Amino acid sequence: MPTMQQATVGVAGLGSMGGGMAGALLRAGLRVRGVDANPARAADLAKNGLIATATPAQAARDADALLISVVDAGQTQAVLFGAGGAVETLRAGAVVIATSTVPPPFVEALEGRLREHGILLIDAPVSGGTSKAATGELSIMASGDPAAFSAAAPVLDAIAAKVYRLGDRAGIGSRMKSVNQLLAGVHIAAGCEAIAYAIRLGVEPAEAYDVITHSAGNSWMFENRIPHVLENDYTPRSAVNIFVKDLGIVLDQGRVDKFPLPLTAAAHQLFLAAAGMGMGGDDDASIARVFAALSGIKLPQ
Amino acid sequence: MPTMQQATVGVAGLGSMGGGMAGALLRAGLRVRGVDANPARAADLAKNGLIATATPAQAARDADALLISVVDAGQTQAVLFGAGGAVETLRAGAVVIATSTVPPPFVEALEGRLREHGILLIDAPVSGGTSKAATGELSIMASGDPAAFSAAAPVLDAIAAKVYRLGDRAGIGSRMKSVNQLLAGVHIAAGCEAIAYAIRLGVEPAEAYDVITHSAGNSWMFENRIPHVLENDYTPRSAVNIFVKDLGIVLDQGRVDKFPLPLTAAAHQLFLAAAGMGMGGDDDASIARVFAALSGIKLPQ
Repeated sequence: MPTMQQATVGVAGLGSMGGGMAGALLRAGLRVRGVDANPARAADLAKNGLIATATPAQAARDADALLISVVDAGQTQAVLFGAGGAVETLRAGAVVIATSTVPPPFVEALEGRLREHGILLIDAPVSGGTSKAATGELSIMASGDPAAFSAAAPVLDAIAAKVYRLGDRAGIGSRMKSVNQLLAGVHIAAGCEAIAYAIRLGVEPAEAYDVITHSAGNSWMFENRIPHVLENDYTPRSAVNIFVKDLGIVLDQGRVDKFPLPLTAAAHQLFLAAAGMGMGGDDDASIARVFAALSGIKLPQ
Repeated sequence: MPTMQQATVGVAGLGSMGGGMAGALLRAGLRVRGVDANPARAADLAKNGLIATATPAQAARDADALLISVVDAGQTQAVLFGAGGAVETLRAGAVVIATSTVPPPFVEALEGRLREHGILLIDAPVSGGTSKAATGELSIMASGDPAAFSAAAPVLDAIAAKVYRLGDRAGIGSRMKSVNQLLAGVHIAAGCEAIAYAIRLGVEPAEAYDVITHSAGNSWMFENRIPHVLENDYTPRSAVNIFVKDLGIVLDQGRVDKFPLPLTAAAHQLFLAAAGMGMGGDDDASIARVFAALSGIKLPQ
């Protein structure tokens, strides 16, 4: 890869995560070609210097690295191998950086398939949400060929505050991410169960929030998500459907591995209920609204 | 109550929590009379100036306040109303500070019963564990008569870094504590589920700990308890049986209130399993050993 100032990066997927990362790449002085199913997103980022393209193949043309930030494994597959897919144009030695949360077996198979084209892969799921994506301060749970890390260093430096190097092959990064998502999903569900129950018990919910965030019951997710409940604001910062998918990945892998996951399973049922109630696109703190429906409590209005 | 230097405090229950609080009271210059079912504990604290007594009634004699730090509602009841109980000697106007985790209806009834003797009650469950008890830096989730708070201020100041005043009657403190225990218990179980699953996935557990404690999956309990798993040290800092009891209190109240608590129920099953496997007296991180038994993984040795 050329030096950072000369490097060209394709970005496929310019939603709240991918758009944030593209912005961080531009600020770092990289040449960025971007594509999204919604052309308005690329047009919007063009104001900041992004070169808007119409297909992943166009975004990947001349690129030293292709960063993929899409919803799931199916979209990752389509970006690379679908019509107008990036493998049509990616040069040998280029690095694909796959940041979406996907089943570990998918990314393991992907590594071999890309290698047939001479393309390197970093299994690079991220943590930190849209705010850290926007500031270029994500955590990356990464694994892959050391040559890929060397080549992609300017890209990773631009988007991440911390890159965890977890192994020399794809899959470990996604496995680590699935452990994080297990906890994140369970903690959102538990936080909503707890704040709803506090209301049922007659504890003032803002007071409960203050006490819990200074006590042993605290979690990153409780602290981050319960304010949405207190403010009655379910605008999606991260949607229910994300955890319908991510806990589904964890539970699917648990079936393969014959590993029981009782808390994950209970939490997943609550995300399914929220989606079933029509709140799949709403903020994941909507689990509190599932508890309200199940119990008759009144949430803060 | 006299000034702090002159005040006399009885302490019933001198275990790792009560003993720590008694030490903090002594360091603050209060006169402390202590009692425990195990006389060796009072004898040990006598080296620091505690006046060892044989019954709660003796510990409460001449006392301005009686601090109770026992296992449960049954022991709290016995300290006050059993043979040699504290109500035999507590003067009118004295303040009982009940710090154990008990069912909210128990402490609500207790307030009325003590009032018949002219005794005030602070419903004062604590958070922070044995380390914060030892340093006099507990958090207290407190409710009760404002007159009780005024009278007991020197005692609360000595044992707590923060006193949350949650209401003017007993019960709210215990309700708040039950919400905290719900989260604490679910987070311990989820942390053990996650670290065990990380091992099953081939993620190095110390690396998983490092990543999670810097990611959105973190919780106070994950950070505090998972090192016990990594170090294979199940010496009880807080025992499995505590959460067998505390989540039981939460679930019992949920039945009364017709409030479903699916995550709490799933977590409680795991604590019951740990107790059933003979680990009730071991550290609550033993839930990881339940997962090892259920899945065949090898925990760190």
